[in-house]
Amino acid sequence: MKKYIVGVDIGGTKIAAGAITPKGKLVGSVTVPTMADKGKTASIGQVVKAIETLFKENGLGKNNVEGIGLCAPGPLSPQKGVVYNPPNLPGWKNVKLSSFIEKKFGIKAKLDNDANAAGVAEMIWGAAKGYKDIFYVTVSTGIGTGVIIDGKLYYGKNGMAGEGGHMTIKFDSEVKCGCGAAGCIEALASGPHTVKWLQEEMKKDRTLKTMIPVLAGGDINAITMVTIAEAAKNGDSLALRTIKRQGDLIGIWLGNIINILDPEIIVIGGGVSMIGELIFKEIRSSTAANSINIFAGKTPIVRAKLRHNVGVFGAASLFVA
Amino acid sequence: MKKYIVGVDIGGTKIAAGAITPKGKLVGSVTVPTMADKGKTASIGQVVKAIETLFKENGLGKNNVEGIGLCAPGPLSPQKGVVYNPPNLPGWKNVKLSSFIEKKFGIKAKLDNDANAAGVAEMIWGAAKGYKDIFYVTVSTGIGTGVIIDGKLYYGKNGMAGEGGHMTIKFDSEVKCGCGAAGCIEALASGPHTVKWLQEEMKKDRTLKTMIPVLAGGDINAITMVTIAEAAKNGDSLALRTIKRQGDLIGIWLGNIINILDPEIIVIGGGVSMIGELIFKEIRSSTAANSINIFAGKTPIVRAKLRHNVGVFGAASLFVA
Repeated sequence: MKKYIVGVDIGGTKIAAGAITPKGKLVGSVTVPTMADKGKTASIGQVVKAIETLFKENGLGKNNVEGIGLCAPGPLSPQKGVVYNPPNLPGWKNVKLSSFIEKKFGIKAKLDNDANAAGVAEMIWGAAKGYKDIFYVTVSTGIGTGVIIDGKLYYGKNGMAGEGGHMTIKFDSEVKCGCGAAGCIEALASGPHTVKWLQEEMKKDRTLKTMIPVLAGGDINAITMVTIAEAAKNGDSLALRTIKRQGDLIGIWLGNIINILDPEIIVIGGGVSMIGELIFKEIRSSTAANSINIFAGKTPIVRAKLRHNVGVFGAASLFVA
Repeated sequence: MKKYIVGVDIGGTKIAAGAITPKGKLVGSVTVPTMADKGKTASIGQVVKAIETLFKENGLGKNNVEGIGLCAPGPLSPQKGVVYNPPNLPGWKNVKLSSFIEKKFGIKAKLDNDANAAGVAEMIWGAAKGYKDIFYVTVSTGIGTGVIIDGKLYYGKNGMAGEGGHMTIKFDSEVKCGCGAAGCIEALASGPHTVKWLQEEMKKDRTLKTMIPVLAGGDINAITMVTIAEAAKNGDSLALRTIKRQGDLIGIWLGNIINILDPEIIVIGGGVSMIGELIFKEIRSSTAANSINIFAGKTPIVRAKLRHNVGVFGAASLFVA
């Protein structure tokens, strides 16, 4: 194996590229704006620019880079290396990203979505080290998942397995998901929806005692999960109730997941995981209560270990697994 | 390989044992009552009796039987060959069934639950021949499932993967499942619950025009899925609406399954599958509408091929896969 692997995390607003040793040490990184609103040519140009800059600044190239892992928003095909048409990359349609990057740099490239890649990174360098059957979850603006079976990402027939965030747990819910369905766990328990739920509780009962508006600088529209987490840590009962609700819903969903997959470990990353034990204890008890699997209470549900540059590590990990 | 495989299907009321050639030809079978109400010793005695009778009547034994496959109600451990404590086999608690049968007959034995085994039988001899990533469903009194990945049953960490019937699709449902949770697909769309739903529709509106009571001999408590299917085939609108509801719910659930597993094929067996195209067309359109997987509409959703003796074939298939 050559000395380095490169990981490129393509998001709707920025592109991060980093070089990593096979042992998981980050040796250099760069970030450039995606310029998504300028269209496909511009944003693909930015992907190339990120890699070129990283290479130049760190003396990297064909001779010492094993591969370039690419992480992009779905839907995409990991097997074909094709990005279909992600809503937050306007103009991208059936972009053959892997083969384009391979030709451009003369280095092998692999493509996957962010949750899949982050799951592999957790298996190799993070909280799921030593495990082979892993369910990885990221809870932030959305809820993404990756299914790892016997040490490998499970893709299914069309490369689209592992879209666990769009499992409905209340098919007749008034809450519609971005995907068009109702009551998906992503719609019910993501960060933004949880904030919205809390704001509505406050509107319903204006006498509620809570420190949240003060923490948000007096503007209830400025409330985020960070505000809620801070209030909860200070014993605020509305914040605690909000986190309990979010944890309960995630547990109902993970109960379903354990019924089907019976994984060795569940790893949760993303912004919401930063709340820490306060939410993990709710998730764990709800999961055990909502699964028919008599061992569900013993399945470890742990916080992701990789926090900074998880996208870059995830993309790079595609060349280690 | 020896000439025959034996399959033993242990149910709450009867035990069926059959001998099969590796090509899937049934050469002999017997059925005995389970005598479950007489307790463990009696019912295990009946398992032995079924095998002994089958052997005697067909000239079978150690010299020409490759293995004895056993199918029992869960929860159980296929890896350990242990039946934990199935509700409909009173007195059975941590019964080491595989090793008991192996010692008794001097022939290798394997144990699995009925949905898992039927899924394997469909892969080997039935509707999923030639496929390797299969989701098998049986819809009758309950809803059981089996997950086959790369041609093998997927068991997960504790041998309890594939309990898809206990996925909730409406966690706050008033309908409680036998497992203790609310809104499991088994509780919402099994045969008995569907009959109950229809009976309640009839009670709510006594002016409903329907041929169902007549088909049930004037006794609405005698209505079964067979009655409903017959009425639907004759254009009865209440029956058609009932089947549409059941198909819609199953489709919502299969949409969730495709999001996670993206299988090559979904095979549906059990009593409800006998309704045929009337329900399959509802299931197919609901599944496609309820999955984020853009290929979901192309995933084949087909009727199981093995109908008679599916339990015996399933149990025997454990020695072919």
